[in-house]
This record gives sequence, structure tokens and C-alpha cells, in this order.
Amino acid sequence: MDIETLADEFDRRDWQELEETDDPVRIAMVGVGWWTREQAMPAVESAALCETTVLVSSDPEKANEVATDSATVERAITYDDFHEGVAADAYDAVYVVTPNALHLPFVETAAELGKAVLCEKPMEATVERAEAMIEAVEAHDATLMVAYRMQTEPAVRRAKGFIDEGLIGKPVFVNGNMTEPILDLVPDPDQWRLDGDLSGGCATMDIGIYPLNTARFLLDADPERVRGKVASVNPEFDDVPDEHAAFQLDFPDHVFAVCTASQNAQMASHIEVIGTEGRIRVEPAFYPWDDRALTLQRGETTIDVGFEQVDQMEEEFEYFAHCLLTDTEPHPDGEHALRDIQTIKAVYEASERGETVEL
Amino acid sequence: MDIETLADEFDRRDWQELEETDDPVRIAMVGVGWWTREQAMPAVESAALCETTVLVSSDPEKANEVATDSATVERAITYDDFHEGVAADAYDAVYVVTPNALHLPFVETAAELGKAVLCEKPMEATVERAEAMIEAVEAHDATLMVAYRMQTEPAVRRAKGFIDEGLIGKPVFVNGNMTEPILDLVPDPDQWRLDGDLSGGCATMDIGIYPLNTARFLLDADPERVRGKVASVNPEFDDVPDEHAAFQLDFPDHVFAVCTASQNAQMASHIEVIGTEGRIRVEPAFYPWDDRALTLQRGETTIDVGFEQVDQMEEEFEYFAHCLLTDTEPHPDGEHALRDIQTIKAVYEASERGETVEL
Repeated sequence: MDIETLADEFDRRDWQELEETDDPVRIAMVGVGWWTREQAMPAVESAALCETTVLVSSDPEKANEVATDSATVERAITYDDFHEGVAADAYDAVYVVTPNALHLPFVETAAELGKAVLCEKPMEATVERAEAMIEAVEAHDATLMVAYRMQTEPAVRRAKGFIDEGLIGKPVFVNGNMTEPILDLVPDPDQWRLDGDLSGGCATMDIGIYPLNTARFLLDADPERVRGKVASVNPEFDDVPDEHAAFQLDFPDHVFAVCTASQNAQMASHIEVIGTEGRIRVEPAFYPWDDRALTLQRGETTIDVGFEQVDQMEEEFEYFAHCLLTDTEPHPDGEHALRDIQTIKAVYEASERGETVEL
Repeated sequence: MDIETLADEFDRRDWQELEETDDPVRIAMVGVGWWTREQAMPAVESAALCETTVLVSSDPEKANEVATDSATVERAITYDDFHEGVAADAYDAVYVVTPNALHLPFVETAAELGKAVLCEKPMEATVERAEAMIEAVEAHDATLMVAYRMQTEPAVRRAKGFIDEGLIGKPVFVNGNMTEPILDLVPDPDQWRLDGDLSGGCATMDIGIYPLNTARFLLDADPERVRGKVASVNPEFDDVPDEHAAFQLDFPDHVFAVCTASQNAQMASHIEVIGTEGRIRVEPAFYPWDDRALTLQRGETTIDVGFEQVDQMEEEFEYFAHCLLTDTEPHPDGEHALRDIQTIKAVYEASERGETVEL
């Protein structure tokens, strides 16, 4: 690939056929926490193919307040209302962004109501519940996309394009990290991420899933086995196995990925693929508020690839809505997401048994 | 630590008391390959405290040629000459830089002759031979330093200073990589690195030892257990287990290091420590021909620390000679180096057994 092609050919939305619509996908936000208010709703507002019309919250007062500030939201309803089908004619799809272990019932109800679902990752707290989710959407022939925003992130898609193009030769290693001081970011020791029943796990489930899933996306492959070690050191993390986690994934053809994730460390995120003829690094990679940077090295030559920074959540919602409007299956579907839950649980098992676990 | 201290306080040779001598340590180079000629001899020539006086080679013609080009070399002798004590009054210490499995007899002879030894890493090809080396030097009360040039590399020493100072909080993860296309660098399929008997292993032994040992140095700790996976994919690597290697080290207090090394990948090297309050990265780190770069991040602030690039081998030889002239025990001694051999062999065992191996 020559330098002009490198510069010109990239289309961050190579999936896009439809750029506008008179009939945007109407979305019900299930869960109205800070992520919904500060990331998801502004993203949908900027998107061309969808709009937020309903808010579903355990806190009707908060939901009504948020609704008042929005030009598109028609109704704010409770979780119970949602399960009873209230306002079901006011939305076409739901975005489920509750604690992990609460995803399943909302997806089940949405599927029963004939709605499409964008469900936050990890899709559920256990393998069994993730499988039940897939069964529920299959039973009602509903569309389920799991919200891996890295798969629509331009820096990551571009990296994947370079890899697919052979610019780094054959991939040899993936190296990924995501770390954050969760108790500084969300200064609440009772938050659901630290509650094993609600979260199903901590560093690996919540953020280790980023290098894990992005490695799968970049390599276009799934891990065959896993080894690793997790630890909770500080008392705030007593209810979960993994304040810190380090794990290693064996991909087909002897490609090894080493990943680290911590909920109690300096905020940082990167993913790098080293190949036989080059390497490619995205850093920062995973936090929507950090400008992503992409570096490609081949032999002695290093190229910093600059590009327009976009709203990761807008890309994701636009892609989801585009799939619905064009009757296309989204890439990160339930089966794809289930593999992550199986892998993460295998990390915990590998750590406990001191053995490599086959997937 | 304030910014002025950060800038001013660093002393890359905080071990140095003696800066010149009328009586430099006279070194016999055992092995006169490209590394000796292009890295070690020029480094010793620049150093103030030592000089090369003897060359020991299997190829007397080559050794004589190299000797002719040197102002300090007095004698070029054969391996057999060396073992017979020829020219023993012309050197005080030896630098052993033969293939790994040939280190032991040269160190034994040197110790018998009352010489100090700087032995290249890995110290030997097997744990048993490494232990025999320690016994030999102990039996003759000889000084043995193993040539971990990262331990005298200013970028790494500075990183360690920042960590010791608490600038990154408590270390959580170490992330290290060293990769190179060995068959491009040394285009000889019969080279000793690919001969399991001579090398004792490939990617992990030859270069994985860099992130491994540098992690130990930076953390001032030794790994307690290891897990990992190695693979040889291409036929040139059939005689060794590890064309590629990925391994994970558990250090005390739940500090995890993830390391990768490959003899058939893009040349690259880095080491990074992520802590509870910051992170520090040296990249490039391990190749003497790359200018090292050091980056410190604390919270939102990132500091690129610039510094004088020095000859890594000169630093190492000067430190070794300084230890001899001041009657100081060198830090990377035989026991320290043995731990690396044990760890590397445990990586192979862990890979084969699919289990975590206790050290």
C-alpha cells in the first residue's frame, strides 16, 4: 500500500450506505446513569439515523428531569412500566445500560415486545445468563447487538485495515491494557462494579473486555485457550476476584495476546499488534474522552497516522441504527459477545486452578 | 519530587566513586564475533577504567586481524591456549561472549586462573550448568558479574529512581516486549541461537530475558511463579521451542508482569510499569543502537524525559571495572542471573504442561 492510498483510502464508515432518513430509529434508553446522560444521549442526538424517545429508569424523578432537557424524549417510564409494555409504540429499539446482571430481563422484555436491542458489554454477568439472552432474542427473532464501540472506532478500524492489508506481515503478538482508578472516577464503595452478583467480575469484566474484544476484532479470530492471574488486594474489592487482572490468550496459528486490566491504577489504554514485518499501536485507545492516536511501524519507518477524532458512541449508535434501517445483521452479535463472557470466566478459572483453560 | 529535582538530581552513575585510574582492568575478550568487535571493544576503548588486552577466539587468524587494529590488544590466543593459561599475566578479567552453552568452561578456567568474569546473559544454557558456574567461581573466590546492561542503562536506572521515589504509586503491572527478525539480522540458518544444545532456548533465552530481568531490576523483586506459552512455527526454529514466547510473571504483592519475545517479528523493545498513581515507559529500551526514550505519566500529566544517550556497553564495562577496582560486589551476580535461567526454563515447562509453575 503506498502512502497516498494510506492517506486517502480510509473510509471510517465503510459499512454506510444510508446517510439520512425520514424515519430514524427511535431508542429507549434503559438505565439513565451518567454514561447515558453524558455519553449515549449526546451521541444519539448528533447521530442522523436515530433519536432518543423514551427513558427507562428506576428513578422516575431523575428520568423526568433528563427528559425535560431533551428535544426528542417523549416519555420517561419506570422499569416496571417497561416490563408492562408501557410506551412500547414510542420506540423501535432499546439501549440497555444497567448493571451487568440486570441486562437479561430487559433484553427479554424488549425481544418479546418486538424491539431491537443494543446491549452494553459485557452482555451479562454469567455465561448462563448470556446464553439465556441469546435464546430470548432468537425466540422472538429480535436483533441483538452488543455495544463494542471499538468495532466502530475509526482508529481501530483503520488499524484493522492496515493489518488486513498485510502491512505488519503476519500478526505475532497482541499487547493490550486498560486501567483506571475506579474509586476516583466513581467515588462510591457501594457501586455495582464492586458487587460480584451485579457485575459478575470487576477489572476483567468491565475493562479487560476492551483489549480482549479488540484483539479478537483486529485479528478476526477467537482465542482457543487462556491463562492468567487475577487478584483483589484492597478491601473495597473484597467482593470481586479482580481488582487487577493479567491474562494471556492463545489465538489460532500461535498468535499470543497479553492483556492487563486494573480498576485501581493510573488511567491508561492501548492496544498494539506486532507482526513479522511491522507493528501497529493505538494509544490512547479505549476511553472516549482521550483523542486516539495510531502509529504504524514497518522496519525502520514509523508513521503517525492522524485523523479526525469522532464521537465513539455516535459511531456505534449510527452503525446500530444503520443495521436496523438496512436490515443488516450487526457484527458484534450475541454469539460474538458470549465468547467474551466465556473467555473472561475462563480467566477466573485459570487463575484459580493455576492452569491453562481451553475454550 | 518537584520538577527541578526531576531534572537535576539524576546521576546515571550513582555507583561511581572512582573516575580514573593508572591501572585499568585488563580484559580478555573470550569470543570475537560481531558483538565483541562492534559493541564490546569500542565500548571498552571509550571506558576510562578498563582496556582490552587479549583476544580469545576459535579463529586465530580473525583474532590476529582484530588485534592488529587495536592499540591495546597485546595477544590473540586460541580457546585451547586460554584453557592452558597462555597470556594469563596479560589480563585481569575476562568477558565471556561465546554461545550460551560454552560459557561454563571459560568461566571455570578464568576462576581457576584467579580472574574476574563478566559473562554474557543468559549465563548458561541450563540450570545445572548455571549452578556449576556459581560453584566454580565460589570455589576460587572469583568475582562473577552477568552482563545485564539494562541495569547500568541510564534510562532504566532513571525509571527505577522514579519508581523508588513513589512517582507512580505502587506498581501494579509491568509490560515488556523485545522482538527482532533474527534471520534478517544474522542471515545464517545454522547460527547457534537456533541450535537448542548451544543456546538452551531461543526467543525467551536470548531476548525475553531483557523484559524479565529489567522487570526484576525495576521492581527490585523476583518472580514467584510463571505461566506462558511458546511456539516455533517456521522450520528454521525446529530445534528450539520458542520462535515466539509470551509469559506472565507473578511478583510479590500481586504485581503481574506480561512479557513477549520473538526472534521472528518486527524489531521493537519496550518496558512499562503501570502503578496506582502513574506509569513509566522506556521505549525503545533494549537495543543499544536505538536512542532510548523515557516517559512518565502521573494522572493527566505526561512528561517526556530527555537525557544524554550513552553507550550501554561502555556503562556496563565501566561499572564492572569499577567494582573490581573498588572491591565491590557487582549487583547482577551469579545467583541473580541463575534466577533468570530458572524462570526461563519454567516458562518452557509452563508452556508444555499448560500450568502455572512455582519458582
